Amino acid sequence: MAAWRSLVLTLFPEMFPGPLGQSLAGKALDKGLWALDVLDIRDFARDKHRSVDDTPFGGGAGMVMRPDVVDAALCAAKDGWTGRVQDGEEGSGRKAPVLYLSPRGRLLTQGLVRDLAAGPGVALLCGRYEGVDERVLEAHDVLEVSLGDYVLSGGETAALVLMDAVVRLLPGVMGNEDSPGEESFGEEGFEGLLEYPLYTRPAEWQGRAVPEVLTSGHHEKIRLWRRAQAEEITKRRRPDLWARYMKDRP
Amino acid sequence: MAAWRSLVLTLFPEMFPGPLGQSLAGKALDKGLWALDVLDIRDFARDKHRSVDDTPFGGGAGMVMRPDVVDAALCAAKDGWTGRVQDGEEGSGRKAPVLYLSPRGRLLTQGLVRDLAAGPGVALLCGRYEGVDERVLEAHDVLEVSLGDYVLSGGETAALVLMDAVVRLLPGVMGNEDSPGEESFGEEGFEGLLEYPLYTRPAEWQGRAVPEVLTSGHHEKIRLWRRAQAEEITKRRRPDLWARYMKDRP
Repeated sequence: MAAWRSLVLTLFPEMFPGPLGQSLAGKALDKGLWALDVLDIRDFARDKHRSVDDTPFGGGAGMVMRPDVVDAALCAAKDGWTGRVQDGEEGSGRKAPVLYLSPRGRLLTQGLVRDLAAGPGVALLCGRYEGVDERVLEAHDVLEVSLGDYVLSGGETAALVLMDAVVRLLPGVMGNEDSPGEESFGEEGFEGLLEYPLYTRPAEWQGRAVPEVLTSGHHEKIRLWRRAQAEEITKRRRPDLWARYMKDRP
Repeated sequence: MAAWRSLVLTLFPEMFPGPLGQSLAGKALDKGLWALDVLDIRDFARDKHRSVDDTPFGGGAGMVMRPDVVDAALCAAKDGWTGRVQDGEEGSGRKAPVLYLSPRGRLLTQGLVRDLAAGPGVALLCGRYEGVDERVLEAHDVLEVSLGDYVLSGGETAALVLMDAVVRLLPGVMGNEDSPGEESFGEEGFEGLLEYPLYTRPAEWQGRAVPEVLTSGHHEKIRLWRRAQAEEITKRRRPDLWARYMKDRP
């Protein structure tokens, strides 16, 4: 079986695997359930100062990553790496997409995470400074993806989040203790809703008791209570999700 | 000056500072422009197996983090840590909020990032397994915050992203090379728009030339071109932001 492969293109290779070397993702990495390669973009700089960025045309603050340097890194990634993915059983004929993590991109959703997990892998371009020259993004048909409407110092922490989200869905990664079942944006009649509240032992804690229905043993009542809670929380906290949920209801 | 302080409550303390120990955030950490403390939630387990989780009342897959254990960690955080923050000049009278990173939370935005950067600091509770018992979140008036509509294996990578976003806005962190000025969700007439395309040397690369206006030297024409590009990209990629932008326009 070809393992799901990730490749990170970054100016800070030492940031990887970082937190993904531990816990759920780290154990799965050790078992070979996914693979992580890192390319240092600076290795593709051509001048003696190994410069990767320059000032923006048209003026403005900050620096922009050069198209020729990023291109050389992406070409190396495609030649050496995506090729290997395509040799794999599962990846045959399907290329791993190249994603550029940026607040200008389409929003990351659980649907995109599932698509990526079902594919052969992903190459993640991490920008630093103001960003990457537009032409190299066009030339490589790069998909810009954003974690959300906030700005990071670079794409590296975003890449860690994206891989964390994908890896947990890969076959064999989650045991019985951690389940991708009923959760926010999950399955079984709770699609599109935020998760209902969770309770565990002790049944009474600091004068706060667990809602009675949860200890009743009535499975159907519990299901209805949880759905009502999930709907209530979604309505209150995320009117945007609630509107979509009401629209998509059969 | 009291530095901005962050405290992470986690079952995986070795994940920190991780990527934030390097580059922009790492240099700022070394300079004392911000501080990072980590509490291991497992240290607050009470039984001999040091268990921190248990099965959910009402059934279902996965485990839930116990309210008593998380409470003990949060109390230690508040006693030992927020207290210290309040001794600081800037933080006097203002408590650092406790955030719980979860897909059920309010969406993280650049506005919330700015608010956090302007405050004394933040305590970040990282969940694992299915999540945390609801009662302890209520008891400590925890603010649930979500990076976006996707599910992670735990709050740790989300905490890294949140701190990355905040730290770059702290006084003294960014030099001239990295500027928090014109960027997505930025300033100076581009508020609420995605960023316009960026270009740097070489002026012609693989037959692709930089847009002429950017080498014209006409500052006003460049500004208008950039605004038109930012509007076009926002309209195409993020109709939701575009609708808000059009509504908020004076």
